Amino acid sequence: MTLSSLSPVLETVSEAHRLRLDPISTPERLLLGPGPSNAHPTVLQALSRPPLGHLDPLYLELMNEVQEMLRYAWQTENRITIPVSGTGSAAMEATIANSIEAGESVVVGVIGYFGQRLVDMCGRYGADLHVIEAPWGEALSLEAIAQALEQHKPKVLALVHAETSTGVCQPLEGVGDLCREHNCLLLLDTVTSLGAVPLKLDELKVDLAYSCSQKGLSCPPGLGPLTMGPRAEEKLDRRQSKVPNWYLDMSGLKSYWGTDRTYHHTAPVNMNFGLREALRLLCEEGIENAWARHRRNSERLWAGLEAQGLELHVPLELRLPTLTTVRIPEGVDGRAFGLHLLNKHGVEIGGGLGALAGQVWRIGLMGTNSTPANVDLLLNLLELELPAFRSAAAAA
Amino acid sequence: MTLSSLSPVLETVSEAHRLRLDPISTPERLLLGPGPSNAHPTVLQALSRPPLGHLDPLYLELMNEVQEMLRYAWQTENRITIPVSGTGSAAMEATIANSIEAGESVVVGVIGYFGQRLVDMCGRYGADLHVIEAPWGEALSLEAIAQALEQHKPKVLALVHAETSTGVCQPLEGVGDLCREHNCLLLLDTVTSLGAVPLKLDELKVDLAYSCSQKGLSCPPGLGPLTMGPRAEEKLDRRQSKVPNWYLDMSGLKSYWGTDRTYHHTAPVNMNFGLREALRLLCEEGIENAWARHRRNSERLWAGLEAQGLELHVPLELRLPTLTTVRIPEGVDGRAFGLHLLNKHGVEIGGGLGALAGQVWRIGLMGTNSTPANVDLLLNLLELELPAFRSAAAAA
Repeated sequence: MTLSSLSPVLETVSEAHRLRLDPISTPERLLLGPGPSNAHPTVLQALSRPPLGHLDPLYLELMNEVQEMLRYAWQTENRITIPVSGTGSAAMEATIANSIEAGESVVVGVIGYFGQRLVDMCGRYGADLHVIEAPWGEALSLEAIAQALEQHKPKVLALVHAETSTGVCQPLEGVGDLCREHNCLLLLDTVTSLGAVPLKLDELKVDLAYSCSQKGLSCPPGLGPLTMGPRAEEKLDRRQSKVPNWYLDMSGLKSYWGTDRTYHHTAPVNMNFGLREALRLLCEEGIENAWARHRRNSERLWAGLEAQGLELHVPLELRLPTLTTVRIPEGVDGRAFGLHLLNKHGVEIGGGLGALAGQVWRIGLMGTNSTPANVDLLLNLLELELPAFRSAAAAA
Repeated sequence: MTLSSLSPVLETVSEAHRLRLDPISTPERLLLGPGPSNAHPTVLQALSRPPLGHLDPLYLELMNEVQEMLRYAWQTENRITIPVSGTGSAAMEATIANSIEAGESVVVGVIGYFGQRLVDMCGRYGADLHVIEAPWGEALSLEAIAQALEQHKPKVLALVHAETSTGVCQPLEGVGDLCREHNCLLLLDTVTSLGAVPLKLDELKVDLAYSCSQKGLSCPPGLGPLTMGPRAEEKLDRRQSKVPNWYLDMSGLKSYWGTDRTYHHTAPVNMNFGLREALRLLCEEGIENAWARHRRNSERLWAGLEAQGLELHVPLELRLPTLTTVRIPEGVDGRAFGLHLLNKHGVEIGGGLGALAGQVWRIGLMGTNSTPANVDLLLNLLELELPAFRSAAAAA
């Protein structure tokens, strides 16, 4: 019995799925939903440079730059600060896979959809799960957090800083200290805050955080920044079991991103070109200026929405400057209105997710999209287009 | 005790990692290593289009196009045929995570580095592992495979079609039938074969396969095509336990890529723009023409290398048309020579990996890089530059 790889089995090729397409011709949209946001034009240019090898000395230098600038964006000294080669959800899973061993007690704060996702993921990694909740549109109190730590003695507390499904910013003062007292790691979702919402990771004593490329950083989706402090790294080194996820195992990844440069997987080099440019722009602007800009433009949006009689879902003191949830006026078909804006004006806003499906629109002003001009454009569109949908609702 | 997300904690921002960089200015390289390969210019253009929302009707249409053309590239009717939002290694892990439950018997064929990676991954998912091996540079015989199936009665047989570390193409005739007889799924690594090496998935009765974007498809790295046939889908539906990996769980992903369009994670839209263009080019060329082109240009390379007295590591009948392993002449510092080519001429070739480290160079001719001009350019460079390194070795 002999086998040959050259045998002529190939005469008949199926043409069934051979499409004959024109080159891509997607339109330019203004993405004012929950993400992705528009990428900065120079980020798109960087993205389209010819690839380098993932072990090319010039690429290794670029990796160092990306790591350094991510530390700046997060205000952290963490050695392990890298973009995971997947979207924000991959980085989310990476923080969990690397910090939890099966059977360990974990407390997850759920104030919206992405807290629920943390619960789902922690369950898959065998956590002894304890959930603390707040209604969608509110945040957890420090008391509730303290009580859960006292009661469940978790190894990890996972919270969402910026809940993309509700538009709530979870206050964090005091939480880091509590976690240290209880010898517990603090894991934080910063998907909708990195680069846009005031956040100083080391000052807040956060041990693990993750984010995405396509919101505050103005890069297309595809990379998931992750950072891991010394306490989390030490727990990783002490693990009894292998990280049950090869692709996201930081014990392997840190050799490639560190000084060894040991091959792990072929890096998404072009996405990293884009991220390098996005972070360069952030360094140019200054993080505190980026935070202030997001705040200023959101306040302009909030005032304009309220002037049109629209109701904001989140109280002022908890509102994210990146993502605003607006109550859909009674009787208005929120989804139809969103599609109308997209198809007629090329402007995307988001619908509600989970418990808020059908109840709110989600308006994002993130990264390069956070400008007074975009705020005014959207407010004008709402003023122009919403009355017809409201009358239809009234007539129905 | 009250918390405020607006408290003025932000006066002091650390400037420690605020780099002041010039815009990116990476050079153009000719990537003739094991990957990434150069991307086609129109793919790079597509990559840099302004993002669309991941639920935009136009993006959903593009997803359908990508799925259809992947079916063409793999010659399969599989319903679940998608690009995973990570690199080829993520797609590799996805096939395992979705097909294996802890404790199940799995046979892995190891003929090089990527077979070893399959073993590592299967171990993390709790497989009852059985390894069959061939020396690095050879392939497994059908007898060895048959015997392992008989002996270990596995639920999954995992093989590498194109072993990127050795340049061997594993013959597959008869393997699919054996797997059906033994009620076992056939899982195949096609990272270095998709779009370039003759491969008809359904005809070979392959149940699960994965690949990457940056080799035969001429797209930058960052996406991992995956396909899953009805037998694998049925096993997934019958699982006792959740897939222990949220990001790669096809039960969730198939709803987003299928008719439901349920949100799973924010898709890497720009990378998918690039992949759509890469697949469009493949449809334009015709898969059988792409296969023939890769074969023709490799034969030209092999003849030229042998004419220079260089020895090829793999016997002709097992040689991949995408990746050629060349024995490094005795005494020559292979790594130094590679760096010399890169720095002086901007041409990248790869070094050996694992058991072949220091013993071979790996020369890739994949996707858009597989041209007679590139073959001749490399052969001329070797003729020009290698003698100096050989004399140095002789003198030492």
